[in-house]
Amino acid sequence: MDEFELIHRYFSTQPVQRGDVLLGVGDDAALLHVPAAQELVVSTDTLVAGVHFPVGLSAEAVGHRALAVNLSDLAAMGAAPAWVLLALTLPEINEKWLEGFARGFFQLARRFNVALVGGNLARGALNITLSVHGFAPADEVLTRSGAHAGDHVFVTGYLGDAAAGLERLRAGADAADAGGGVQRFSFPEPRITAGLALRGIASAAIDVSDGFTADLDHILQASGVGARIAVASLPLSPALLRHMPRAEAERLALSGGDDYELCFTVPPERMQLFESRKCMLDCRVTRLGEIIPEKTLRCLREDGAEQPLNAAGYKHF
Amino acid sequence: MDEFELIHRYFSTQPVQRGDVLLGVGDDAALLHVPAAQELVVSTDTLVAGVHFPVGLSAEAVGHRALAVNLSDLAAMGAAPAWVLLALTLPEINEKWLEGFARGFFQLARRFNVALVGGNLARGALNITLSVHGFAPADEVLTRSGAHAGDHVFVTGYLGDAAAGLERLRAGADAADAGGGVQRFSFPEPRITAGLALRGIASAAIDVSDGFTADLDHILQASGVGARIAVASLPLSPALLRHMPRAEAERLALSGGDDYELCFTVPPERMQLFESRKCMLDCRVTRLGEIIPEKTLRCLREDGAEQPLNAAGYKHF
Repeated sequence: MDEFELIHRYFSTQPVQRGDVLLGVGDDAALLHVPAAQELVVSTDTLVAGVHFPVGLSAEAVGHRALAVNLSDLAAMGAAPAWVLLALTLPEINEKWLEGFARGFFQLARRFNVALVGGNLARGALNITLSVHGFAPADEVLTRSGAHAGDHVFVTGYLGDAAAGLERLRAGADAADAGGGVQRFSFPEPRITAGLALRGIASAAIDVSDGFTADLDHILQASGVGARIAVASLPLSPALLRHMPRAEAERLALSGGDDYELCFTVPPERMQLFESRKCMLDCRVTRLGEIIPEKTLRCLREDGAEQPLNAAGYKHF
Repeated sequence: MDEFELIHRYFSTQPVQRGDVLLGVGDDAALLHVPAAQELVVSTDTLVAGVHFPVGLSAEAVGHRALAVNLSDLAAMGAAPAWVLLALTLPEINEKWLEGFARGFFQLARRFNVALVGGNLARGALNITLSVHGFAPADEVLTRSGAHAGDHVFVTGYLGDAAAGLERLRAGADAADAGGGVQRFSFPEPRITAGLALRGIASAAIDVSDGFTADLDHILQASGVGARIAVASLPLSPALLRHMPRAEAERLALSGGDDYELCFTVPPERMQLFESRKCMLDCRVTRLGEIIPEKTLRCLREDGAEQPLNAAGYKHF
């Protein structure tokens, strides 16, 4: 079976049809229509086996995860997803793997109405690179650079579960095992709905991929500010706390990565609007602290002591 | 040096600034403006070391080539290039390689006014995946599916040199060696200008990446037609004919791949317009034959005999 037949078998009969796709998979390029009054929001992200996920992760999880981490970047911009390009580099043709990958990929694509509009299949070490495209009005897009002193710092969902899940996967757990964050690592949920609800509310936003402190630090650097974060407020899931001591859970929550939650800031004058729209975020939201003018990331401990947090992680704490 | 510093050092200070880039490299995604009355044309292509180019190819050639083969897809659609995303997966940080790659990449980007608007850097086996974005009016875009019986079949430039160059590179030739197609393989020229000039003229178009017969066959399949091609008309460069017998040169020209010329069809009623615009293509153009109603690809030999041509070009698996 050659490249063209493979593409046709697994990726031409995709579930999502959109009126703005004038020409999809099958020509040299796709022809796409961006609606009036909307700007194009574009991002690319790569998954490498053994680096971004354990080699043994199920094909379905890999397919879901590849699209989810890319959609997460659109969520962080407050963009509505529209199209995706899939560049798949595979060491060999494994139809069972491709079938699983396509299933995980398209299940998520269908949920967020994302059309696959192009792709590439190459031979080489497993590498999955997507570029995702969405829409947002220019004046409502969320960036990293809009945080100001006094803004409140929030995060969606729970932190730390994905990192705990990755540790369990590396120790040999199965992706079907829903406990201990394995499911959270394998099937991350892009916070698209939250991102859309935060348009016109959040002053800055980012998705938590590298770890909460590292990603919050990107907001702080881009905005030229600092932050004070209360460790006691960290949203730790009951499942996480069942599997490890609180101090270990806090460490994972601050530096673990792979959560794909949104970290965002809200100015005081928009807090009332934010409260009225919270239910539209479709997930829990936790206030963790506030933006401060000094360009440091400080941690408020439960005993009231304050100490600097290293943006790279928790190890200096 | 970490990922963020590297991205900053080599890819933030890029030479191309465009007014339609509202937000470029540095946030979760880029924010881009598509002009009114234009549709978005998008394509993605991957280069794997040892598969799409010899492992020893210079970093500068790899940087040029990665962008060129992607721009070639825009050329085949008659699109004007605008933006590119670069997903780079590298086995290790090699600053000399990155510096050369960026030089080759940006030299070509500057020529076609392509802005780098986002990217990703990952660790893994060398893999370069780009997605390119351009503009075209919906009613002037070139596709594979518009060829009709009676249309003339053309190709830009020369065929076969890149395949000859690849053979010499694999035999140990240096990329700086301009002879025998090494330069043509290492620094392919995307036919952007030709693609733009063919708007409103060509009934179908494709870029020659897998080999002339294989790519022409894509037009034939998509259009539901066949073609008769005169082997004696194949554009063979003097350099190619100096290095090998004519029969061997013809073989490379028909099935060699990597030329990144445009193969296109022109209806008889547009031939006069085409003749008047030929100088705008900025490269030589050769008529190779015509589209026929029977769905076969036939080869007209110099002795007048006709025989079926095998469409098999480069197979990725």
